[in-house]
Amino acid sequence: CRAVGSQRAHLSSIGKRFQLDDVIEAQQFDRDTLSAIFEVADQMENVEKNLPRSQILKGYIMATLFYEPSTRTRLSFESAMKRLGGEVLTTENAREFSSAAKGETLEDSIRIVEGYSDIIVMRHFESGAARRAAAAAKIPVINAGDGPGQHPTQALLDVYTINREIGKLDGITVGLVGDLANGRTVRSLAYLLAKYDNVKIYFVSPDVVKMKDDIKDYLSSKNVKWEESADLMDVASQCDVVYQTRIQRERFGERIDLYKEARGRYIVNRNVLSVMKENAVILHPLPRLDEITLDVDEDPRAAYFRQAKNGLYIRMALLKLLLLGW
Amino acid sequence: CRAVGSQRAHLSSIGKRFQLDDVIEAQQFDRDTLSAIFEVADQMENVEKNLPRSQILKGYIMATLFYEPSTRTRLSFESAMKRLGGEVLTTENAREFSSAAKGETLEDSIRIVEGYSDIIVMRHFESGAARRAAAAAKIPVINAGDGPGQHPTQALLDVYTINREIGKLDGITVGLVGDLANGRTVRSLAYLLAKYDNVKIYFVSPDVVKMKDDIKDYLSSKNVKWEESADLMDVASQCDVVYQTRIQRERFGERIDLYKEARGRYIVNRNVLSVMKENAVILHPLPRLDEITLDVDEDPRAAYFRQAKNGLYIRMALLKLLLLGW
Amino acid sequence: CRAVGSQRAHLSSIGKRFQLDDVIEAQQFDRDTLSAIFEVADQMENVEKNLPRSQILKGYIMATLFYEPSTRTRLSFESAMKRLGGEVLTTENAREFSSAAKGETLEDSIRIVEGYSDIIVMRHFESGAARRAAAAAKIPVINAGDGPGQHPTQALLDVYTINREIGKLDGITVGLVGDLANGRTVRSLAYLLAKYDNVKIYFVSPDVVKMKDDIKDYLSSKNVKWEESADLMDVASQCDVVYQTRIQRERFGERIDLYKEARGRYIVNRNVLSVMKENAVILHPLPRLDEITLDVDEDPRAAYFRQAKNGLYIRMALLKLLLLGW
Repeated sequence: CRAVGSQRAHLSSIGKRFQLDDVIEAQQFDRDTLSAIFEVADQMENVEKNLPRSQILKGYIMATLFYEPSTRTRLSFESAMKRLGGEVLTTENAREFSSAAKGETLEDSIRIVEGYSDIIVMRHFESGAARRAAAAAKIPVINAGDGPGQHPTQALLDVYTINREIGKLDGITVGLVGDLANGRTVRSLAYLLAKYDNVKIYFVSPDVVKMKDDIKDYLSSKNVKWEESADLMDVASQCDVVYQTRIQRERFGERIDLYKEARGRYIVNRNVLSVMKENAVILHPLPRLDEITLDVDEDPRAAYFRQAKNGLYIRMALLKLLLLGW
Repeated sequence: CRAVGSQRAHLSSIGKRFQLDDVIEAQQFDRDTLSAIFEVADQMENVEKNLPRSQILKGYIMATLFYEPSTRTRLSFESAMKRLGGEVLTTENAREFSSAAKGETLEDSIRIVEGYSDIIVMRHFESGAARRAAAAAKIPVINAGDGPGQHPTQALLDVYTINREIGKLDGITVGLVGDLANGRTVRSLAYLLAKYDNVKIYFVSPDVVKMKDDIKDYLSSKNVKWEESADLMDVASQCDVVYQTRIQRERFGERIDLYKEARGRYIVNRNVLSVMKENAVILHPLPRLDEITLDVDEDPRAAYFRQAKNGLYIRMALLKLLLLGW
Repeated sequence: CRAVGSQRAHLSSIGKRFQLDDVIEAQQFDRDTLSAIFEVADQMENVEKNLPRSQILKGYIMATLFYEPSTRTRLSFESAMKRLGGEVLTTENAREFSSAAKGETLEDSIRIVEGYSDIIVMRHFESGAARRAAAAAKIPVINAGDGPGQHPTQALLDVYTINREIGKLDGITVGLVGDLANGRTVRSLAYLLAKYDNVKIYFVSPDVVKMKDDIKDYLSSKNVKWEESADLMDVASQCDVVYQTRIQRERFGERIDLYKEARGRYIVNRNVLSVMKENAVILHPLPRLDEITLDVDEDPRAAYFRQAKNGLYIRMALLKLLLLGW
C-alpha cells in the first residue's frame, strides 16, 4: 500500500498499528516480528476452535485476486478471513476473465479492486507482481505467490510449524529434500532460517534439481552452515526437520526420462522414519505424490497435515494484524 | 467422517446427535429417519421465508468441493447454508484447478480442506468417491453426486416432494418416464420408494434406455409391484406421480439418430395432463428440454419447480442435522 | 419480476416501495427518479466508509448469474451487496457450466435461481435477455449487461459521476471520444443525457467507429444539440466532460490495420489536459489501454477511478431500493 489514507487510519485504530503495510516477501520479517506473529497465530488456534466464532473482522472485505488458479492457497486465505467474521470477494481466474485479458495494466486493476475491498490477496504468474500491486494500492496487499518469485505466507507457516513442533528455531538441523532448484518454498525457507542462530542445513536432491548458488552464497554470507549430501538416510538421522518436496514435472518439459529418474531418487518411507530422531518431524508443502509413502502418515512425526492447518492460523494472524493492528 | 473428534463433539452438542455422520447414498436412510428429516425440512420453509433470517449456523463454514461443475446443485447447497447464517468456501472446478491436477490423492485433498471448514459438500466424477472422502474426513461429508453413482439429496427431495404433494408415500402409484437407463435420479428414487408399502411403479421408456435389471430385481425382492409399459396415456391416467426425465444426449455418442428417436417418444403435454387424476403431480429433476411442453407449466399439477425449491429445504435440514443435531 | 408475490410484499415493507421492480435499461429512469437514486447513492458513501458497516441487507441473498464473465462488474455488485450486510451466490461462467449448456431455457433457469435468492444480477450475451429474465422472475432482476443491448448501472454511474463532479447535468457540454459505434456505454449515456436541458454533445471518433444514426436521430428528436468533430483539442477546450472510450479490438476481426489506425487517432494526454477547463473532468468506463496516457492520472481532473468507485455506491443504492424500498 502506498500510504496511510484517512480510511486506513480509522480502520486500524483498534490496536497498535502493525509495522508492515503489506506482506510481499519472506525477507521483510525480522526475528522479533516473526515471534510476535507466531504468538498471534497461537491465539488464532483457539479463535478457530471455539464457538461462537470470532467476528473481529466483521464488515471487512478481502478480495482474492488470483491471476492463476491455486485452490488450496485461495481456500486457506478465504477460510482465515471467514473464521474472523470477514467477507470475501473471489476471482480465481483473473488472467482469463478480467480486464487484464483486454490489456489493462495490473496497476489499473488494483486501483479498481481496492475500491471494492479492504485488503487484497493476490496470486500472479509474474515475479515482482506483488510489489507492483502494493505500490499501486492504498490498502494492504498480501502476496499469495508471484510466479517463481515469493510465497511469503508459505515460508511463514513453515517456520511457524518448525517452531511449534520442535520448540525452537535456533540450533536446529534441517534437511531440504527433493526439487531444490524449482521449489520457491525451500528457497524462501532458507532465507528465513538464516535469521536464526546455529542453524545447519543439508541439501539432498537429484543432480538435475540442485539448490542454486544464490541461496548457498546467501547462507554462507549469514554464517549458516550448509552441506550437500546424496545420503538421505544419513541426513535423516541427524535432522530435526526433514523437509520433503515434490519434483515438479512441469519444469522438465519433454525430458520425462530425467523427471522419472529424479522423482524416484529420494523417497521418505518407513526406512527413513526408522533412523529419524524421536522428536524430529517430516514436513512437506503439499501436494505430495509418492515422495512420502502413505504408511508414513500414521507416524506422529508426520507433521505435514498439521503444517497445512498452521497455514490457516498464520493467515488469520496476518489478516488481523494488517487490518486491525496488534 | 471417520470419527467424532473432540472438535466435532462440541460442535454438535446443541441438540441430540444426528445418527448419521455423512450423507453418502439414498439407501442409508430408513423410513423413520426420512420422516424425521422431512419434519425438519418442513420447518425450514418458515426459516427461509421469515425475516430476520436464521443464524443457527453462524460461524460454520461449508466447503463446496466440486470436481465437476454443477451450478444448480452448488447454488442450492450454498443457498441452504447461507439461509441458516453459515459461510461457504467454493471451488467449482476442482478437477482442473486444484492439486488433483498435480496428482494428489482425493484423501490428501480432503485432509487439507477439512482443516478449513466444518462440513464438505462434494461432487465428483467417479462412483464411490464420496465414500472414500467420508472415510478420510473427520468432518461430515455430503455426496452431491459422484459420477454414475449416487446423488442422495436429489433422491431425498424427490420423496419429500411426493410426500408433500400427495400427502403419503404408502400405496402410491408412480410412473417413471424417459431415460431410465442413465438417470441416476430414477434409480435412487426406486431404491427409496421400496421402503414404503404397496407402492406400484410403471416404467415408460424408449427401448434403448430401459430400466436395468438390477433395479427391477431389487424391487421384486422388496415386493414392490412394477410393470413396463409403452402407453404413457394409460400409465398417466393411473398414477399419483408422473416422474418425467430428460433423455441424456451425452450418452448416445455418435448415434444422434437413436437420440432423436428416443427424445421424441414420450412427451408430457396437455393431452397427458387431460387424463391425469386431479390430485396427481408431474415431477422432473430438471433441466428439461421439450419432454414437458411449456403449456403444462401453468397447471397446478406441474410440481417440478416446487420440487426444485424443496431441494433447498432438504439441504437446509441436512446441514442443520449434521452440524447441530436434532 | 412478474408480480409482487406474498414473499416480495413482506420483504419490501420496510420503506416506501421503490417504483421499479427491475433495472433493465437506462431509459426506464426519469429525471426525478434519477435524482432520488443519486441521493441514496450519496448516503451509501458514508455507509461504505464507516465502521461498523451496515447490516440493512442481512439475511438477503443476491445471485450473480453471469452467462459471460465480467470480473469487474461482478465484484462491484458483490461488494455492494456485502457492504450492506447481504450474502452472495456466484456463478461467473453460467453459459458453460450450468444447465443452459444442456439446453435449458433462460426462463427455466431463472425460475430455479429465484428459489435460492432474493434478487438476481444477470449478465448475458444476448440482447433482450434481461427483459426475458425479469418477465419470468418473481423477484427483482438487475441487468448487468446483456450483449450489445444495455448496461444500465454503468449509464447510471456515469451520469451520477458527472453530477457529483460538475455539480449539475443541465447545460453541460460533453465530448464522447473513441469507439462510438461499438460502445454500449456511450450509447446509454447519450440516452440518459437527453433527459436534461441544454446539453451539448460532441462526437469525436475515427471514421470506422462513428456514432450510429439511431442515437443521432434520438438526440435530435429530444432537442439535444450534437456535432461531430475531428479536432479533439478544440472539443476538449469547450467541454465539461471528456468521456474517453477504448477502441474495441474484438470488433475489427482480421482488420488489425484498421484497428491500429483507429486506436492511435485520439489520445487523451497532457496536451489535451492543457486546454481543458479547470473544472472539467475526464471519464472512462475502463479498462483503458493507452487512450489515456498514464501521466494524466495525477491530474485532479482525471475522474475515472472515482467514477469506478461511484459504481459501487450506485449499485448499493439500487440493491437497497429494490429490496427494502425508499
